[in-house]
Amino acid sequence: MFKKILIANRGEIALRIIRACKEMGIETVAVYSDIDRDSLHVHMADEAICIGPANSSKSYLDIKNIITAALITNSEAIHPGYGFLSENPKLVEVCKMHDITFIGPDEEHINKMGNKSEARKTMIEAGVPVVPGSESSTTDSSEALKVAKEIKFPVMIKAASGGGGRGMRIVYNEEEFIEKFDTAKAEAKSAFNDDLMYVEKFIEEPRHIEFQILADKYGNTIHLGERDCSLQRRNQKVIEEAPCSIMKDDLRSKMGESALKAAKAVNYVSAGTIEFLLDKYNNFYFIEMNTRIQVEHPVTELITGLDLIKEQIRIAYGEKLEVSQDNIKINGHAIECRINAEDTDKNFRPSPGTIEDLLIPGGYGTRIDSHIYSGYKIPPTYDSMIGKLIVWGSNREEAISRMKRALDETIITGIHTNIEFHKQILENESFVKNKIDTSFLEKEIISR
Amino acid sequence: MFKKILIANRGEIALRIIRACKEMGIETVAVYSDIDRDSLHVHMADEAICIGPANSSKSYLDIKNIITAALITNSEAIHPGYGFLSENPKLVEVCKMHDITFIGPDEEHINKMGNKSEARKTMIEAGVPVVPGSESSTTDSSEALKVAKEIKFPVMIKAASGGGGRGMRIVYNEEEFIEKFDTAKAEAKSAFNDDLMYVEKFIEEPRHIEFQILADKYGNTIHLGERDCSLQRRNQKVIEEAPCSIMKDDLRSKMGESALKAAKAVNYVSAGTIEFLLDKYNNFYFIEMNTRIQVEHPVTELITGLDLIKEQIRIAYGEKLEVSQDNIKINGHAIECRINAEDTDKNFRPSPGTIEDLLIPGGYGTRIDSHIYSGYKIPPTYDSMIGKLIVWGSNREEAISRMKRALDETIITGIHTNIEFHKQILENESFVKNKIDTSFLEKEIISR
Repeated sequence: MFKKILIANRGEIALRIIRACKEMGIETVAVYSDIDRDSLHVHMADEAICIGPANSSKSYLDIKNIITAALITNSEAIHPGYGFLSENPKLVEVCKMHDITFIGPDEEHINKMGNKSEARKTMIEAGVPVVPGSESSTTDSSEALKVAKEIKFPVMIKAASGGGGRGMRIVYNEEEFIEKFDTAKAEAKSAFNDDLMYVEKFIEEPRHIEFQILADKYGNTIHLGERDCSLQRRNQKVIEEAPCSIMKDDLRSKMGESALKAAKAVNYVSAGTIEFLLDKYNNFYFIEMNTRIQVEHPVTELITGLDLIKEQIRIAYGEKLEVSQDNIKINGHAIECRINAEDTDKNFRPSPGTIEDLLIPGGYGTRIDSHIYSGYKIPPTYDSMIGKLIVWGSNREEAISRMKRALDETIITGIHTNIEFHKQILENESFVKNKIDTSFLEKEIISR
Repeated sequence: MFKKILIANRGEIALRIIRACKEMGIETVAVYSDIDRDSLHVHMADEAICIGPANSSKSYLDIKNIITAALITNSEAIHPGYGFLSENPKLVEVCKMHDITFIGPDEEHINKMGNKSEARKTMIEAGVPVVPGSESSTTDSSEALKVAKEIKFPVMIKAASGGGGRGMRIVYNEEEFIEKFDTAKAEAKSAFNDDLMYVEKFIEEPRHIEFQILADKYGNTIHLGERDCSLQRRNQKVIEEAPCSIMKDDLRSKMGESALKAAKAVNYVSAGTIEFLLDKYNNFYFIEMNTRIQVEHPVTELITGLDLIKEQIRIAYGEKLEVSQDNIKINGHAIECRINAEDTDKNFRPSPGTIEDLLIPGGYGTRIDSHIYSGYKIPPTYDSMIGKLIVWGSNREEAISRMKRALDETIITGIHTNIEFHKQILENESFVKNKIDTSFLEKEIISR
């Protein structure tokens, strides 16, 4: 096994990786920016090296500094965590040049999945369903209508150069298509000076369902079931669950098979996530693949008993997967709340500052992944996530009640957090009944 | 379900019960002594009532004060936790008089199992193996020898009034019996002014193995497998594990069957524990039954997924067990370290005082049940246990590495703790190889 691993990250994920390494008997090297000098990952690692100033482009994103730190500490491998350089193919390439193992996939996988249109093409070839739509954009309404009729209504008309909802229309039937196309096109022209349009299937009340996969270097690829990450605010996940409790066994098999196809289509190696939209008729569509560990990986760990960081390290070292698809059993239900230092009453603006009183919740089924401590100064420079509260319960109902209990007992003073916001979600009747989709938070919680 | 439960305890177990109640939607009433005014259980419960001064005989052991607190708060039930009044049949009786449900067994069960000789008699009648030995004590060496030959050597000669090792001899064969009996008898006479002696099978290298059982009011009784609690100092458990990793399936079935027989012999209701000694030849002997929840119950929770406090509450309310013996599956391995405020270098003397810095370990598979917080003043009055660190791993090896990691990251300043002592145990080669018995701690760790 590796003797020493450098962790090219900070915050809770750096701690997560250090913990896994310690349990595996692997030495750890932390890297940190000036402002993170008193961070817990610096304290917990065996060695720590300053790699630059607070500005992450000159520290956590600086490949040269990170590689230098790895070389002078004789680190055999680098774990990138999530964010920062985790999906940067350049780091993988430079690691190779210096004979350092990158704990993650090959640059080829990152490149292929990072390019949306190439990923879409690869998925279509592999037989993985994607959101049906135009192959290319057009200004011709009758050509667009042809596509709409092929993929069936309702459809979404979108401006090729679009964004922020402009040049965008939902169309429910053929009769209203041409008129809506033309107004959208005019809107696009005036907004973006580009009236190229395309048509896409409108996914009704979609859930964001993602499948965790693991693939070793010997062609063994398994999936660990799904996570339901529908609760999002501005495309940022807020609460994640595993499993998705409306998921039936046969749908799980079908989606899992598609996830495996997606990974195998690029000969993927390491942990990865295939993200789908699932509509209310149980149709599912590939949206993207994340070629790294994800923030929400703990919910999968708690229901499968696997340690995903350890699996990543073992795979990178060249070990074979010890588990097969048949061994994967889903046990109970897990929920994660992302705890952010933010003022939810002031449009969720970040709330950096010094943590004063701190009471971390405990007891049965309660897991905390966090780098904060009493007296810790949250810098304004990075992500506002200060920790993850993850609970396990024998079923969803117990998990919800446990999460509420754990949030209730948490005390964090000195900064604003989104704890009350989480409580509000957990009390919401639609959430409790699991009647949610990706618009739920905006519609049911935030806009009220 | 109950609307309100009073918790007649303090410290981590009071928190444990409050947490279960909160998750079940049950209101809680904490009771506290003067000195516990700033305790976390007081803060976390919905209501809190002072029941007397620090001296526990005038507060936590005062039945009248506790019942009064229950009555004035309209509590429908009382959970006694462990220790204090948890095995006091009088409390059960007084609860009945006031129409308050005692969350635990009937006074009859407590009485029967609390009386060692009656418990032994009941077990023999039920066909549960007990440590073989004299039916009654004697001063006659030839009568004692007859028993020794029946139960086979090695045997232990013990003084009926004995204690502290005096008047006690291990005898390995017939030849040395009479002489050792006579010296032991003389010793007993001079020490206790009583030369009545008895003979018991000497259990070689015994492990302390206990079975958790659950029994409802309708005759459904199940066991949840075993815990290995062999690591003890002066009969106080220090580290507990589940399962016992030398346990084979057939032995587990046999011991489990005996545990069920033991519980059924007294028509036991609630959670309970049947304690056995297991010798190196896999013979096992009933030693006693604990008619309450035990400190080490979390290790069973982590490998079975059941919540034992919730089960106790449901059973007391009159619900049927939802799980059957066939549903009980053992998943992974759990270890508990009891964290004590004590100075292990000074003969483990208690180390009360104020907790200054506190860093609670976190991450995957790490559970903390503790009532301490930064600034908390540990009173000198009660038990020195300040929390329990419990880890889960996919196997024993992972659980040990996780416990070491978690202990390593724990920071508690201001008092002495036994954290370094735990680390020493976890590093011990015999422990790692699971070559342990009840004398392990004294012989291998403390005396060195």
